[in-house]
Amino acid sequence: MKMILTIFFIFSLISISHASVVDFCVADYNAPKTPVGYSCKSPENVTVEDFVYHGLNKIGNTSNIYKVSFQPAFDEQFPGVNGLGVSIARLDILQGGVVPLHTHPDASEVLLVTQGNIVAGFVSSNKVAYIKTLHKGDVMVFPQGLLHFQINSGGNTAIAYTSHSSENPGVQILDLALFRNNFPSWIINATTFIDYAEVKRIKALFQGSD
Amino acid sequence: MKMILTIFFIFSLISISHASVVDFCVADYNAPKTPVGYSCKSPENVTVEDFVYHGLNKIGNTSNIYKVSFQPAFDEQFPGVNGLGVSIARLDILQGGVVPLHTHPDASEVLLVTQGNIVAGFVSSNKVAYIKTLHKGDVMVFPQGLLHFQINSGGNTAIAYTSHSSENPGVQILDLALFRNNFPSWIINATTFIDYAEVKRIKALFQGSD
Amino acid sequence: MKMILTIFFIFSLISISHASVVDFCVADYNAPKTPVGYSCKSPENVTVEDFVYHGLNKIGNTSNIYKVSFQPAFDEQFPGVNGLGVSIARLDILQGGVVPLHTHPDASEVLLVTQGNIVAGFVSSNKVAYIKTLHKGDVMVFPQGLLHFQINSGGNTAIAYTSHSSENPGVQILDLALFRNNFPSWIINATTFIDYAEVKRIKALFQGSD
Amino acid sequence: MKMILTIFFIFSLISISHASVVDFCVADYNAPKTPVGYSCKSPENVTVEDFVYHGLNKIGNTSNIYKVSFQPAFDEQFPGVNGLGVSIARLDILQGGVVPLHTHPDASEVLLVTQGNIVAGFVSSNKVAYIKTLHKGDVMVFPQGLLHFQINSGGNTAIAYTSHSSENPGVQILDLALFRNNFPSWIINATTFIDYAEVKRIKALFQGSD
Amino acid sequence: MKMILTIFFIFSLISISHASVVDFCVADYNAPKTPVGYSCKSPENVTVEDFVYHGLNKIGNTSNIYKVSFQPAFDEQFPGVNGLGVSIARLDILQGGVVPLHTHPDASEVLLVTQGNIVAGFVSSNKVAYIKTLHKGDVMVFPQGLLHFQINSGGNTAIAYTSHSSENPGVQILDLALFRNNFPSWIINATTFIDYAEVKRIKALFQGSD
Amino acid sequence: MKMILTIFFIFSLISISHASVVDFCVADYNAPKTPVGYSCKSPENVTVEDFVYHGLNKIGNTSNIYKVSFQPAFDEQFPGVNGLGVSIARLDILQGGVVPLHTHPDASEVLLVTQGNIVAGFVSSNKVAYIKTLHKGDVMVFPQGLLHFQINSGGNTAIAYTSHSSENPGVQILDLALFRNNFPSWIINATTFIDYAEVKRIKALFQGSD
Repeated sequence: MKMILTIFFIFSLISISHASVVDFCVADYNAPKTPVGYSCKSPENVTVEDFVYHGLNKIGNTSNIYKVSFQPAFDEQFPGVNGLGVSIARLDILQGGVVPLHTHPDASEVLLVTQGNIVAGFVSSNKVAYIKTLHKGDVMVFPQGLLHFQINSGGNTAIAYTSHSSENPGVQILDLALFRNNFPSWIINATTFIDYAEVKRIKALFQGSD
Repeated sequence: MKMILTIFFIFSLISISHASVVDFCVADYNAPKTPVGYSCKSPENVTVEDFVYHGLNKIGNTSNIYKVSFQPAFDEQFPGVNGLGVSIARLDILQGGVVPLHTHPDASEVLLVTQGNIVAGFVSSNKVAYIKTLHKGDVMVFPQGLLHFQINSGGNTAIAYTSHSSENPGVQILDLALFRNNFPSWIINATTFIDYAEVKRIKALFQGSD
Repeated sequence: MKMILTIFFIFSLISISHASVVDFCVADYNAPKTPVGYSCKSPENVTVEDFVYHGLNKIGNTSNIYKVSFQPAFDEQFPGVNGLGVSIARLDILQGGVVPLHTHPDASEVLLVTQGNIVAGFVSSNKVAYIKTLHKGDVMVFPQGLLHFQINSGGNTAIAYTSHSSENPGVQILDLALFRNNFPSWIINATTFIDYAEVKRIKALFQGSD
Repeated sequence: MKMILTIFFIFSLISISHASVVDFCVADYNAPKTPVGYSCKSPENVTVEDFVYHGLNKIGNTSNIYKVSFQPAFDEQFPGVNGLGVSIARLDILQGGVVPLHTHPDASEVLLVTQGNIVAGFVSSNKVAYIKTLHKGDVMVFPQGLLHFQINSGGNTAIAYTSHSSENPGVQILDLALFRNNFPSWIINATTFIDYAEVKRIKALFQGSD
Repeated sequence: MKMILTIFFIFSLISISHASVVDFCVADYNAPKTPVGYSCKSPENVTVEDFVYHGLNKIGNTSNIYKVSFQPAFDEQFPGVNGLGVSIARLDILQGGVVPLHTHPDASEVLLVTQGNIVAGFVSSNKVAYIKTLHKGDVMVFPQGLLHFQINSGGNTAIAYTSHSSENPGVQILDLALFRNNFPSWIINATTFIDYAEVKRIKALFQGSD
Repeated sequence: MKMILTIFFIFSLISISHASVVDFCVADYNAPKTPVGYSCKSPENVTVEDFVYHGLNKIGNTSNIYKVSFQPAFDEQFPGVNGLGVSIARLDILQGGVVPLHTHPDASEVLLVTQGNIVAGFVSSNKVAYIKTLHKGDVMVFPQGLLHFQINSGGNTAIAYTSHSSENPGVQILDLALFRNNFPSWIINATTFIDYAEVKRIKALFQGSD
């Protein structure tokens, strides 16, 4: 009886009067975002579901020009990773499919192949292309901010998971950055040496204007 | 006269129109918390009292099973440390008292003994136990996230202060994590190899359920 | 002809005289380690194989008391992740197997289940246990430094991959920290309230001494 | 036709339902400030003007005792630098002008001279004074938090730009810190060994009280 | 006499026995590089020249296809910026010249125009192109890792200085990454949708193979 | 028997072939220093003594002009704090003693008074002086890089401990930075407005030259 009471003291000793977020910071999408992620949900409103994500358990929509489905569990989709400095995404590449050249401006990537075969690679600032054919169970890293790609190298649908050193890696797909917006074609031509007519052709493909 | 006027210019030159927080970020407990701490109080409302904390100047409640009082001056208690990356706490260990095995998930610790004698130690990931008897004036470090403890090693009440590499170190006390909540006993047994009956016995002691 | 020459200039313009490491820092295991990882291998000696890891493509040894194989691709095993702030590991849990309670002192974790069913959970500093049964394709996060576990919840071998917010997460397994070294039994008893005889019993199981 | 439709999917695939800030965090001066800068403006309200600053394109007011104009483009003035970890400022030093001894508590500095001649220097913790006369095109660095100065070393107005390793470097000007506020003169005398009468004399010059 | 002696004590009090690097870490190019920069030169060997860089005081070689000279003062060129988290570079763009699309994988950029007129822009992850014509004295920011460009927009040679949030920003020039190495043309075609013949044409221009 | 063998596997499973430093990085003073601290001692050579420091258990030499002893346990003195982001120091201020105005360029400070009375204060970038008389048990914070001081405010020797948010805070003492080196007097006069004769007078006191 006495013991039960006394135990209570050590418990209350380090309790605090205002809503405390100590170990984690589940994203509150209705509060301000900061340079390092979302504000935190009050811990009383946090449940185990905030820490679990079911969005990667089946293939996404692959009816696109790349024959690829990319499904991120970044802080925009998965409130529990906010502030933790790590995130994951699922990649399905159909036969003949290609993950186009892209960068993650704010994170490095670890790729894990769980099905099929993938040719993957990145180009360094020193202009060296590091390219490798990966099989089931293989892991490859892509350092932060460098152009990289993945291609189904034959056989059925390939599946891979990408882990990132940030909950907010960003994704800049080269094609979409150049050809699917109002980025003026003459500037693209001038700053890439891609022929103007070719720029216009790809823009038509990607619905870019100007 | 001219001089006074001109001085005014250098002063106003770098003044700014909106409420500016430059050097510090005193916690505003009514504004959102972020992954790196509380939002900042407007600087006009900051006084020297925000930077001073009186809560550590006497022993806290030691009427608990551990015969210990632990009083933190972390960002939850002391608004002035918010954003500064450092904090402090006071520890009183009565004769026969023990600070139970615990970790700080988000900070390393420096312990300073100011009275009495303490046996302190931590276990590394490599499973080496580093243990030492400390006397008045001795300092010991406990690297981030590792299990550590302190025991009054004889004589009167021991007093120590712990400094941390974060204003929000977190405290995970092993006993309370395992035995003072609804963590199912069969899982504790399965994941620690502690006998089921022993789990139940300690749970009764700590008021845990399930 | 002129063009070829001039191109050379832009190339050489930003070349540098000493061995340059710009985008990545592949671990040189023979050079000093620093607080943030290994020194970098000279880039001329780096090949694509440094960025690829084959160690996770089959199950590891599960002939142990936990019926579990845990295979990390951390910076100790995989030189390419050095300095990138992310890493991965593979977990196989046989029927009846258990990943014992443990922490990663220096990283948060994202768990992805790729086969079977797993009961997983962690305990927060506020002593709340967040526990969930996960199925193939489910993802769960475990914030930095908190005690967590995984249990095969029925059916065949479960497989999962854990991603971490550091290339050097550390692993502190509670059982091994307490019972598989020379951590004195009286201290374990005093700082955990686990009965002395029970401590001795588990120590015998784990070959700990003292 | 089919193609246009399918392209839409890759586009929508990674779109998100709530206002997303991925690559940048333009300061919202009406939302809370955090230990790492301002909250982010909603990206729909961001325009190219947020990323451009025109405030440094002419000399500022130099009618002050130092004959200097210092115009920062820090996060208080330039919303686009918020969260980017870099900022810039313009410095004009008239003939006979002096940038007084000062520190930036939260950033290192790179100084670039674009007109005139400047004697610049800093003092290290080891009490070594590193001093150099700089000419047009020269660059000098001043490590974080160290006392440094710049003096027009002859000829016409000197112009320089300072870049900083933070969007919020802070500026603590020694004279103003000591002599232009209510910092008690006896404390200044006691903690600097500057003669009390001299303290009073300079305080009169700088309008400090007490 | 007594005074001189006693002063000596405060001096020696905080002196240290081994070579101490406290405030800065001037690069030692002969010692190992780490994930966060070069090892430090012993402070006795550091002089003011380590903190001053003269390499930006005149235009560099512009006899290249871009009609541009880019001269960095990054940690590879300027030992004094090592470890300081900031660096600078000079950019000269002749009439008709173009800084091609590129990214800095590890740093944000602040651009300052000091002569001439420049059309500059970047594309966000959300595929918005932010483009602006800048004049002398204008400043523009380019967030980390995003594709950006600068074009002389008419008149004589334009000069600009770029400041970065790292001493090691990296530079990945899109053209050189794609077309000036052994990156296989079929992969470029497959991952960018640029016509194979066009890839081959540009590769010939940039001396790329394969 | 079987059990003992199998336990061995889980143990060896995560063992590694080269010398591993996982949880801590005890300073190796004979290996290169990096921008973030010393290289790590090989873990086999680490003992508990590396984590314990005895240098603060008595008063240091106070036979100096300030009547103060300042004894740091920073990474230069205490190898165990290397890489941990926290450190401590002991301060003894005799009756009439003064800790002169100084900054820590790389760390914030938490001051704890354990004996006597101290007037302490700091000046912000906004030129506000925050000053307070502290008694035994009081705590005060001094944000990174700001000028601050401590004065024995009456009674016997005051004792305090300062904790810092870095293992390498640096200490720039204003007097010693200005007056105890070869910093030219005319520059000090020009950049501080302290009268030239007064500069010379204090320089004589502190043995500065030039």
